[in-house]
Amino acid sequence: MDEAPEPAVSRWAVQIEYDGRSFVGWQRQASGLSVQQVLEDAAGRLAAGRTVTSITAGRTDAGVHATGQVAHLDFPEDMMLTGSKVRDALNFHMKPHPVAILHAVPVDRAWNARFSANRRFYRYRIVNRRGRLALDQGRVWLVKRSLDADAMAVAARQLLGRHDFTSFRASACQARSPLRTLDRLAVTRLGEEIVIEAEARSFLHHQVRNMVGTLKLVGEGTWSPARVGDALRACDRRAAGPTAPPDGLYLTGVGYDPDPFNP
Amino acid sequence: MDEAPEPAVSRWAVQIEYDGRSFVGWQRQASGLSVQQVLEDAAGRLAAGRTVTSITAGRTDAGVHATGQVAHLDFPEDMMLTGSKVRDALNFHMKPHPVAILHAVPVDRAWNARFSANRRFYRYRIVNRRGRLALDQGRVWLVKRSLDADAMAVAARQLLGRHDFTSFRASACQARSPLRTLDRLAVTRLGEEIVIEAEARSFLHHQVRNMVGTLKLVGEGTWSPARVGDALRACDRRAAGPTAPPDGLYLTGVGYDPDPFNP
Repeated sequence: MDEAPEPAVSRWAVQIEYDGRSFVGWQRQASGLSVQQVLEDAAGRLAAGRTVTSITAGRTDAGVHATGQVAHLDFPEDMMLTGSKVRDALNFHMKPHPVAILHAVPVDRAWNARFSANRRFYRYRIVNRRGRLALDQGRVWLVKRSLDADAMAVAARQLLGRHDFTSFRASACQARSPLRTLDRLAVTRLGEEIVIEAEARSFLHHQVRNMVGTLKLVGEGTWSPARVGDALRACDRRAAGPTAPPDGLYLTGVGYDPDPFNP
Repeated sequence: MDEAPEPAVSRWAVQIEYDGRSFVGWQRQASGLSVQQVLEDAAGRLAAGRTVTSITAGRTDAGVHATGQVAHLDFPEDMMLTGSKVRDALNFHMKPHPVAILHAVPVDRAWNARFSANRRFYRYRIVNRRGRLALDQGRVWLVKRSLDADAMAVAARQLLGRHDFTSFRASACQARSPLRTLDRLAVTRLGEEIVIEAEARSFLHHQVRNMVGTLKLVGEGTWSPARVGDALRACDRRAAGPTAPPDGLYLTGVGYDPDPFNP
């Protein structure tokens, strides 16, 4: 079967920052405003009313933020575009929504923001103190019980490598396989803040938040670090801890080889 | 002349975080909601309707944030208070305003949040990029022209020490003397962010924002670093640069000796 000829378009990769508090998540939904809708509406205005669709590297959930999300947009080929024009026009049309284009670069049609990505980077921020949040409400997870970040770091190491992550996978996860290779899961305390950095080729749905929710049980002393390894081997969602709230989660970057943003 | 006997009160020092975007500044004003009003109203509710007044270490302007503001509150002496009760009750009554009590400690009547303070710490955050702000709108100063942080650091050193800071002083400043001793003014680049940290016994009105607005002229290459020293010696507000916006400014701490929060 021959494929239908592709429409003549010019494809642009964009790096995106957004505040997840304002959105139902990346993906379009009838229930409210999505980042995808804000981006595609702005792209459509730049394209003088023609429809522009986007594909993203990571479909973040409601309340999850991004400092380095990546998507691609297909504009009609007859448009005269430059990187600064795409960036500035999209930024103009997305006002006042808290979504910003940081960089825009042309890519060829074989390049795909989702399928060309070979690495995702997430950061999870916990503020560990008794007093409530004033500056970072909705931007971090406030945990009032004192957490032992060193114990969390020890526990995290058991999740590194290639495993069946069924215990840390949302029931709604649509991935065909629960196998993933976790390359980094670092826990660092900086004053009252605990930062957890995760890196993998790809993650299961809710995987980072479920790992963080489980590590928090270790940090507060409810679980021993070793129990995290037991939970992993159980291959049963009920064996791991609860899902951490979206507030503290940031998609900080997406890796490509070569990287169109740093050629 | 004898002083009137002081009312029997118990004095509490509180450490406070707030998001300046929501307020007309620290001080009560007819034009809108102040941090002082939110704090004193909450304290009044804890005191069952009796009036509680506060004195603060730094009367921050509209839009300026704090991660380590300090104030003291005088509660009626008949109240049975503990540090956690003061902190948690004030936090409860201040909801949903973005003001949070981080710590509350009892102090004696000779201790004064303003007059006992011997050090103020400020941080100013610049984001230096072309793309607009999504996550930190109102929380940083977005400067689109590329800034040379090293040149800014060189320029900053000329302001260290004891000087007449008339050139960096707001016309509305009510301090008796324009002499101040600036102990630290460090400029550091962290990726796209430039952080300026300032430390002194006390600052003139708008001094930090006027210094930052001037250093920005050096960073973008409009001024040589040496011109900052000339501006200082001119003792004329018109000789220095414009006032940086409040968005990027944070009062990060107040120093006391001894420190009631770390005895």
